[in-house]
Amino acid sequence: MISFDVPLAEKALIAEIRRMAMPSGQRRRAGISVRITHSAPAVLTGIGDDCAVLRVPPDHQMLVTTDFSLEGVHFRRDWHPAEVVGHRCLTRGLSDIAAMGGEPLAAFLSLALPRDLSQTWVRRFTHALIGLAKQFGVTLGGGDTAESPNGILADIIVVGTVPKGKAVLRSGASAGDRIFVSGQLGGSAAALWQMRKKPKTKLNVREYPRHFRPQPRIELGRILRERGLPSAMIDTSDGLSTDLAHLCEESGVGAEVEAELIPRASVGKPAREVDIEFALHGGEDYELLFTAPATRRVPSRMAGVPITQIGHITRRRKILLMDRAGIRRELQPRGWEHFRR
Amino acid sequence: MISFDVPLAEKALIAEIRRMAMPSGQRRRAGISVRITHSAPAVLTGIGDDCAVLRVPPDHQMLVTTDFSLEGVHFRRDWHPAEVVGHRCLTRGLSDIAAMGGEPLAAFLSLALPRDLSQTWVRRFTHALIGLAKQFGVTLGGGDTAESPNGILADIIVVGTVPKGKAVLRSGASAGDRIFVSGQLGGSAAALWQMRKKPKTKLNVREYPRHFRPQPRIELGRILRERGLPSAMIDTSDGLSTDLAHLCEESGVGAEVEAELIPRASVGKPAREVDIEFALHGGEDYELLFTAPATRRVPSRMAGVPITQIGHITRRRKILLMDRAGIRRELQPRGWEHFRR
Repeated sequence: MISFDVPLAEKALIAEIRRMAMPSGQRRRAGISVRITHSAPAVLTGIGDDCAVLRVPPDHQMLVTTDFSLEGVHFRRDWHPAEVVGHRCLTRGLSDIAAMGGEPLAAFLSLALPRDLSQTWVRRFTHALIGLAKQFGVTLGGGDTAESPNGILADIIVVGTVPKGKAVLRSGASAGDRIFVSGQLGGSAAALWQMRKKPKTKLNVREYPRHFRPQPRIELGRILRERGLPSAMIDTSDGLSTDLAHLCEESGVGAEVEAELIPRASVGKPAREVDIEFALHGGEDYELLFTAPATRRVPSRMAGVPITQIGHITRRRKILLMDRAGIRRELQPRGWEHFRR
Repeated sequence: MISFDVPLAEKALIAEIRRMAMPSGQRRRAGISVRITHSAPAVLTGIGDDCAVLRVPPDHQMLVTTDFSLEGVHFRRDWHPAEVVGHRCLTRGLSDIAAMGGEPLAAFLSLALPRDLSQTWVRRFTHALIGLAKQFGVTLGGGDTAESPNGILADIIVVGTVPKGKAVLRSGASAGDRIFVSGQLGGSAAALWQMRKKPKTKLNVREYPRHFRPQPRIELGRILRERGLPSAMIDTSDGLSTDLAHLCEESGVGAEVEAELIPRASVGKPAREVDIEFALHGGEDYELLFTAPATRRVPSRMAGVPITQIGHITRRRKILLMDRAGIRRELQPRGWEHFRR
């Protein structure tokens, strides 16, 4: 949990994070929380004790996910403003909760900072992270701080809830199920490709929203789960080819995808559709990839997000991609490799 | 959650961790768990999905804690064998659960490894961590992996449970309460001091058990909570002076401690009591520091661990140390500063 083994400035920072994490009008000693869906606070004891104490709604199960955001692996300080790093850090965790059809409850942040990092950077990072958390009714309930020997190191933990037995797993897909994806794919990878190509040029954050400000599909995941539509679900954090392979592996099935059907993101100015390779293999779009029985009607838009059928599940444990000419080839998982320094 | 954005060897490692984490005789698809206290498995879905799904026993609340173990900050590869790093990594989290009087349920490991790290090191680390987890009925339910740009980076998350409203907080101490500590203090810091003094000499792990193999006081914490003894509790991870300051700060009280009463660890061969400075300020002993009302009798031994009264809580918000001659001076929190590379 938050400890104090860091220089005094960090101790002050923890106190500041604690204040930022506290919803306005709530007493310090009463714990720090607010929930949108449940009327009672979910985090009974937050930052300032050995553990956070969380209330679990009756007849619910808990969801837990952890995700690193490491400088030089998941972000670069010269490419990603502090706000973007904070936003993307929490999105990684929230998106995992969305992929289970869950509702996020609390986040925990382990944060190791190099000695020479400016307090301004940390404030902007934390402010963006807590801002996104509040947007989803999530309390920052604790974490850990340390001095980092090299680079900024963050690990985000998100805890959520789901009604008993209702979590949407990766393992439920059956042959004949249809495959759907939310939003558009490849937008995040296209931004990375641009930055790699021209490392000195600053990209316009608004022209690449899926890279710089990805929105976790929490509401969509919840609605899908409530309607009992998905037989299996995963978020597209590693890229379609890799994430579909995960889903198929856990379900013990294969898939056939039509390249023409895959919704591609538009990026840049003037906006142009990304290359199919980005949509197939580019990660960090944080869209939802799910399967549904052929007997169920899936709307073309849910929670304000377009839903596109891109293929179907097969018994044969291979993943095939059908091109424009109707020719099938095997789709190898070539999920996004994180950029190096 | 466990993702596959690492070289193939790491993918194989995740599969291996998944096998290691699975209790023998359990089917792969049924989820991976076993609990000591609750008959039904607590981790319904573990490694291999976007989130772990955890069952929460009825009328219980959840505890969550996160703790970094960073190379060069919390351990050094030349001082700490891989097994020791794995053991200490999980102990940090388990000890936080103990300090709430909770029972650990599941652990999650975010692990970033440098490209050149030997698979043997990782196996020994993981084996020790999972071994300790199983000893406490804890399932490794997931985590994240990444390639580290510099050094080994681990973040351990432990999730536990406690009966509703029964978590022992830091904030419950009142003036007049007595202050107790379990076991002996300073043993861990004494080992660090030895290694710093003679960096080339390998210490005998068995002569410094509290540093190399600290035992989290899970059973003691649970028994204390069941008996309703502690008004406040914390673990001694940062050192007595700092941890007592945390407890007093959260409770809005002060304390008076008698130096002569503080139980000091014996280390080395022949075994010798550590200097009082180690017992006062040395961290990472992972003992329990708690307060209890003066009206309650506290046994001198519980769960096989000696319990020693070292002082009492005062209304005046200062922490005083009384020496052998009866002279009081203010005890400044000088908790353990982690060693640098």
